[in-house]
Amino acid sequence: MVKDTENNAFVLWFTGLSGSGKSTLADRTGELLAEKKLKLQRLDGDILRGLFPATGFTKHQRDDHIKRVGYMASVLEKHGVCVIASFISPYNEARSLVRGMCNNFIEVYVTCPLDECISRDVKGLYQKARAGEIQNFTGIDDPYEPPENPEIVIDTQKLSIEESVSVIMDYLERYF
Amino acid sequence: MVKDTENNAFVLWFTGLSGSGKSTLADRTGELLAEKKLKLQRLDGDILRGLFPATGFTKHQRDDHIKRVGYMASVLEKHGVCVIASFISPYNEARSLVRGMCNNFIEVYVTCPLDECISRDVKGLYQKARAGEIQNFTGIDDPYEPPENPEIVIDTQKLSIEESVSVIMDYLERYF
Repeated sequence: MVKDTENNAFVLWFTGLSGSGKSTLADRTGELLAEKKLKLQRLDGDILRGLFPATGFTKHQRDDHIKRVGYMASVLEKHGVCVIASFISPYNEARSLVRGMCNNFIEVYVTCPLDECISRDVKGLYQKARAGEIQNFTGIDDPYEPPENPEIVIDTQKLSIEESVSVIMDYLERYF
Repeated sequence: MVKDTENNAFVLWFTGLSGSGKSTLADRTGELLAEKKLKLQRLDGDILRGLFPATGFTKHQRDDHIKRVGYMASVLEKHGVCVIASFISPYNEARSLVRGMCNNFIEVYVTCPLDECISRDVKGLYQKARAGEIQNFTGIDDPYEPPENPEIVIDTQKLSIEESVSVIMDYLERYF
């Protein structure tokens, strides 16, 4: 039996550079939350862009994308579904807009030095961006605006995955 | 207490020309469904386009819009929320795609002769389209492809609002 989270759902929003560890932390947090029998929905930037390939990466297109996804998250939250979202979402204004739509918006700033993200380069995208093969790449030729007042900050250069997730789960304790 | 519709939710999708009566029927159906204590979410073309004004009306933009909204409807349905959607959604292919995403997709074809829609012209849009002030307007300079196998057909020139909604509620009886 899934718990009724009608008034206690939340939107856990991971933001950070490509390669900072957002999706990994979001997935692992999702696994632990699943054990709590919460209604859950994962929303991930790469997956949604795969579904909607026309989304684009200009500031306007990014803002529009985040606003749409944020709206979807807020509607799910309203119906008692806990949302675990991972998006680069580089602009403060767009994230604030999503925060304003949601009831319990928890911003997780996944921070990691750009050099470290570049050296990880899991998807090979930094290399392409630096070679000029892809444009508007956050951190290379597009800005990342760090959150001003995030609920949680995780430095993935300093913390392991399990340590990071433990910080997040401790914060979420209030919702269980 | 809201009923658990985990495995019995549906996506009730109204399609038809502007002015055919989609939103009116969807709203009224929503009122009657609310009495059944189902978890409900209304999704309406005009409202979503108001939130996302950059959506656009070319075939590509329309398809992208319907696909995004359809995805949102399917995720809500998966979480036990009954969705009442009203969109012109003029293309068969896009509607089929949404049907494929959903578990219980109920297509309601709201049919009404174009002349009658033009004479109603509730929003004054047909006048603007005919004057060339707006482009890509369904029925004027953009096609409407009638559903091939809709679950429900409502002719709003022949049926009153209450008669129409009664047909829809009879169909939905299997979900209560």
